[in-house]
Amino acid sequence: MQDIDLFWVIIASTLLFLMQAGFLCLETGMTRSKNNINVAIKNFCDFCVSALAFWLVGFGLMYGLSYQGWIGLDLFSLDFAKAPPSLAVFFLFQVMLCVTSVTILSGIVAERMKFGAYLFAALIVSGLLYPVAGHWSWAGRIAEGSGWLADLGFVDFAGSTVVHSVGGWAGLALVLIIGPRLGRFDDGSGAQTITPSNMPTATLGALLLFIGWLGFNGGSTLVLDDTVPSILINTVVGGCVGAISAGGLRYAVNQRLDVDQFINGALGGLVAVTANCFAVSTGSAALIGLVGGMIVVFVSQLLEILKIDDAVGAIPVHLGAGIWGTLATGFYGDLETLGTGLNRLEQIGAQVLGVLVYGIWTFGMAYLVFSAGNAAFRFRVSEEEEIAGLNISELGIHQESELQASIATPDGTLQ
Amino acid sequence: MQDIDLFWVIIASTLLFLMQAGFLCLETGMTRSKNNINVAIKNFCDFCVSALAFWLVGFGLMYGLSYQGWIGLDLFSLDFAKAPPSLAVFFLFQVMLCVTSVTILSGIVAERMKFGAYLFAALIVSGLLYPVAGHWSWAGRIAEGSGWLADLGFVDFAGSTVVHSVGGWAGLALVLIIGPRLGRFDDGSGAQTITPSNMPTATLGALLLFIGWLGFNGGSTLVLDDTVPSILINTVVGGCVGAISAGGLRYAVNQRLDVDQFINGALGGLVAVTANCFAVSTGSAALIGLVGGMIVVFVSQLLEILKIDDAVGAIPVHLGAGIWGTLATGFYGDLETLGTGLNRLEQIGAQVLGVLVYGIWTFGMAYLVFSAGNAAFRFRVSEEEEIAGLNISELGIHQESELQASIATPDGTLQ
Amino acid sequence: MQDIDLFWVIIASTLLFLMQAGFLCLETGMTRSKNNINVAIKNFCDFCVSALAFWLVGFGLMYGLSYQGWIGLDLFSLDFAKAPPSLAVFFLFQVMLCVTSVTILSGIVAERMKFGAYLFAALIVSGLLYPVAGHWSWAGRIAEGSGWLADLGFVDFAGSTVVHSVGGWAGLALVLIIGPRLGRFDDGSGAQTITPSNMPTATLGALLLFIGWLGFNGGSTLVLDDTVPSILINTVVGGCVGAISAGGLRYAVNQRLDVDQFINGALGGLVAVTANCFAVSTGSAALIGLVGGMIVVFVSQLLEILKIDDAVGAIPVHLGAGIWGTLATGFYGDLETLGTGLNRLEQIGAQVLGVLVYGIWTFGMAYLVFSAGNAAFRFRVSEEEEIAGLNISELGIHQESELQASIATPDGTLQ
Repeated sequence: MQDIDLFWVIIASTLLFLMQAGFLCLETGMTRSKNNINVAIKNFCDFCVSALAFWLVGFGLMYGLSYQGWIGLDLFSLDFAKAPPSLAVFFLFQVMLCVTSVTILSGIVAERMKFGAYLFAALIVSGLLYPVAGHWSWAGRIAEGSGWLADLGFVDFAGSTVVHSVGGWAGLALVLIIGPRLGRFDDGSGAQTITPSNMPTATLGALLLFIGWLGFNGGSTLVLDDTVPSILINTVVGGCVGAISAGGLRYAVNQRLDVDQFINGALGGLVAVTANCFAVSTGSAALIGLVGGMIVVFVSQLLEILKIDDAVGAIPVHLGAGIWGTLATGFYGDLETLGTGLNRLEQIGAQVLGVLVYGIWTFGMAYLVFSAGNAAFRFRVSEEEEIAGLNISELGIHQESELQASIATPDGTLQ
Repeated sequence: MQDIDLFWVIIASTLLFLMQAGFLCLETGMTRSKNNINVAIKNFCDFCVSALAFWLVGFGLMYGLSYQGWIGLDLFSLDFAKAPPSLAVFFLFQVMLCVTSVTILSGIVAERMKFGAYLFAALIVSGLLYPVAGHWSWAGRIAEGSGWLADLGFVDFAGSTVVHSVGGWAGLALVLIIGPRLGRFDDGSGAQTITPSNMPTATLGALLLFIGWLGFNGGSTLVLDDTVPSILINTVVGGCVGAISAGGLRYAVNQRLDVDQFINGALGGLVAVTANCFAVSTGSAALIGLVGGMIVVFVSQLLEILKIDDAVGAIPVHLGAGIWGTLATGFYGDLETLGTGLNRLEQIGAQVLGVLVYGIWTFGMAYLVFSAGNAAFRFRVSEEEEIAGLNISELGIHQESELQASIATPDGTLQ
Repeated sequence: MQDIDLFWVIIASTLLFLMQAGFLCLETGMTRSKNNINVAIKNFCDFCVSALAFWLVGFGLMYGLSYQGWIGLDLFSLDFAKAPPSLAVFFLFQVMLCVTSVTILSGIVAERMKFGAYLFAALIVSGLLYPVAGHWSWAGRIAEGSGWLADLGFVDFAGSTVVHSVGGWAGLALVLIIGPRLGRFDDGSGAQTITPSNMPTATLGALLLFIGWLGFNGGSTLVLDDTVPSILINTVVGGCVGAISAGGLRYAVNQRLDVDQFINGALGGLVAVTANCFAVSTGSAALIGLVGGMIVVFVSQLLEILKIDDAVGAIPVHLGAGIWGTLATGFYGDLETLGTGLNRLEQIGAQVLGVLVYGIWTFGMAYLVFSAGNAAFRFRVSEEEEIAGLNISELGIHQESELQASIATPDGTLQ
């Protein structure tokens, strides 16, 4: 092979894989110990089922020979032992992107969704929603295709929209269907804080996500070219500014050092630069991260007002900052580097169009399919199961920390 | 150096190193908090002593100038500042493989084995059992040697047998000598479940192992050639199918979502493709992973029936699926790629021979040496120490989560 | 770009980033659950503010056009989208080194320092103390500079002094100003052991640091040349011997298996080879690690005698072993490889000079600035806040494990 570009994409895929570990830590840390095994194994299993679904079906829909820019029609269930190495490496990177999009859902609906229903949702996203949507923007990344949105000039370099917003939109649909956790909005005085099990683990998760993002953004070039170093630095800067921005804004408004906002602000900054890090200056990356962090704070607040219960704050991060990053590509992206031939206003228009199209497709389809699924077999555990915790009610497993928690807070409602 | 192949093997070594962190998480999560520091520090220290033993002795036995294909006779205690860079990189990768084999033992015998005795066992494996056994198959990987089993056509690409089964066989011998944990098989009604301390950490561990496996299998080419991308995909597919297979089988039989089986099934799938991922189609990798996952379930059940107490389920994973993967190389491996010149039946014969030889050597020698060691200085802690927990009895250390556990379950027997 | 050297440094930067996750685990595991979120978020945020400070100011001071070898004068707030890729990659690696130096402080002063004050300290180190000090030795690593200490022959390859001792000196100054934790030296009978929250997590942290160190030392060549493989092996050997040396010495003296000493011994061994791993034999690396581990034990003891309360033992590791490693470069480094043109005695003299200069500059300046800062706004939380724990008093956040801990030890003084 002896190909430094493929080598780089292999490394980037490995780093993306590490993001799965990051999500696991983030989500188990932010949820209660009576549910955290359930969250962890959902993360683990959604990787397994989604990777297989993407191999069997999704990759073909996304990157197969394009039917008029709308959907791919071959490359299903490939035998990579006989495929060109470059295609195999491309698949490896793409499967990790797909799984990242899927696993965003797990945190949003943690602590009350059935294991089987969650895997069903993961299959829908990885086998249908994500790859079809992805085709529209990214089909042109291999020879056989050309997506209709890309043809109109929509640009989303590493996936602020294609990966993050798609996961966020699907998660939003899902959370509207299954509803908030018991106790979260019950007493009429606004949102109740639900005590997390382990915030250092959540913080570790955010760091692992940050590290993995170097592969996410850096690998999306698909070659190790001169833009990679700047992309990596923009990624670091965007994430760092996002943390300070969200944490700082929250402190300015509420005089509170809010761990969630530091963490999710960094992730918001990272999501925001994902679409545009190849085409903006370091200073612009800082600005995009700054706004990304602020959006995380605003959307978090908005969700509380709307009584939408996102257990880990993934909607503000992946959907909120994802939309912003996509738009920011139009505002700040170097037009020559974007290479669409559009002028600034047209480019902004293309970005707005993309945001709308992805919202309508992903949220709409997700709401439709998940509603049908939920009607056929209820997605949510029973009230008794939720109170008992999903570790025991779904998995039949106790662990010591959970036993301790039940003693520590004998009333057990929000614990 | 400017050598892309050596660079790849360096990266692969780093990923292999990450598996040590994966084992640590897996094993501490699956054991009780009164023992989990003990498990963690065993993982940490077995890396340290085994790496040094392999440098001083093992590497020479495994890769030194071969005495008739049976044992290596030089390359002991090399000064790598004066060695060719290619040899140093090769060593780096090999030392990580060796340590992986060793650390398999730590989980099996967790929660009742003395720290010093465990390090003794680690030294025996890394300094004698593993390198001698490895020589027979892998001596030909550097210029000076040629192993007798490889000469007969035995193929084990990345170590389903050479690394995993060897660790599993040695662990089996050890667990037969030291016996089950107190309370595990005591009440006559079959195996008692022992409450783990932290299953999300265990799940994180499995993910880290999965990530590291990309280096394990991908690096075993020792070059970055055209087969690497397919190897990586086979690894991912094998692991993903293994998780679903084991978890699904357990669910079908027991109507139970069993976290252990999802995790260990993935690892079983990974072990199973380790021997053959360079020479099978993606579909075959899926099939091999499928059976690998099922074997994990069957062997786990078998161990319970035989009252063999493997604290983390490493024997099903590393020995059970390791044997299967080695045989599967004969069944499904592309004969031309295997390159032994044998026909299908002969190849299967060679694989069976390899499995038997490694079983006899490793289990036999391990049983002998560990029995002698155990007679000389008892390997197992006293009953009081085991009840008190190895954190306090061996290490004299408490931690908060442990204090909590002792309150949460005042009776303390299985806790 | 197609440049294997830059590629290697990118990978090394990623591994260095993983060290941030390692520090987080090490420090949260070693501290109490009432403070461990606070420790984690300090680790997370010091990365964010320090990376930005280094981008805005520090990188220019360290690597800008040199004013007579004392300080850099340009390269502030660079736009890396327009910079040469090689400079961007160099920055990426250097920013990770800077952050490593900074984060050393967080562990030392854990459990009683205000969040804002800690970020202030991080800014001082990353924006002033570290880069100016670094200029003196490393300015010559890019074309524009030449540091005065390097001109005198001082050699510190990857930063035993420039990174580790600088962090250690600054941390020592800080801990002298803010004083020991309540209860640590209060009852007159020597140092009280403070129960850590989670030692397996701390051990995981040490492993992640160990893994990351391959990038730390391996990347400091800034090219992928023939010395890299030996550097990596020296790193592994130094760390492994350090663990055994410190753990073994403690066992020999106190008949105690001390988890802290195994972990910190490994880190001490790693710090000790950091300065010299490019210029010593594998055997010398073992020896340097051996002494490094012993120094960790001695300095730990010394701090207790002096009633200096380093919450995670970072001063013994980073300052103690850092000084030793710097001196060892003079004792054991191959003079030709060091390339300073000095004879052995002169080289040792240069190393001693470097140790003294860095001690005076860093400790002196840190003591001055931190004293002034502490006078202006008290660095330490109030006694009530410290007893309540910094999670709740600073961050207003509870987590389940903490609730449990307060029940497990109702008296709550040292818990």
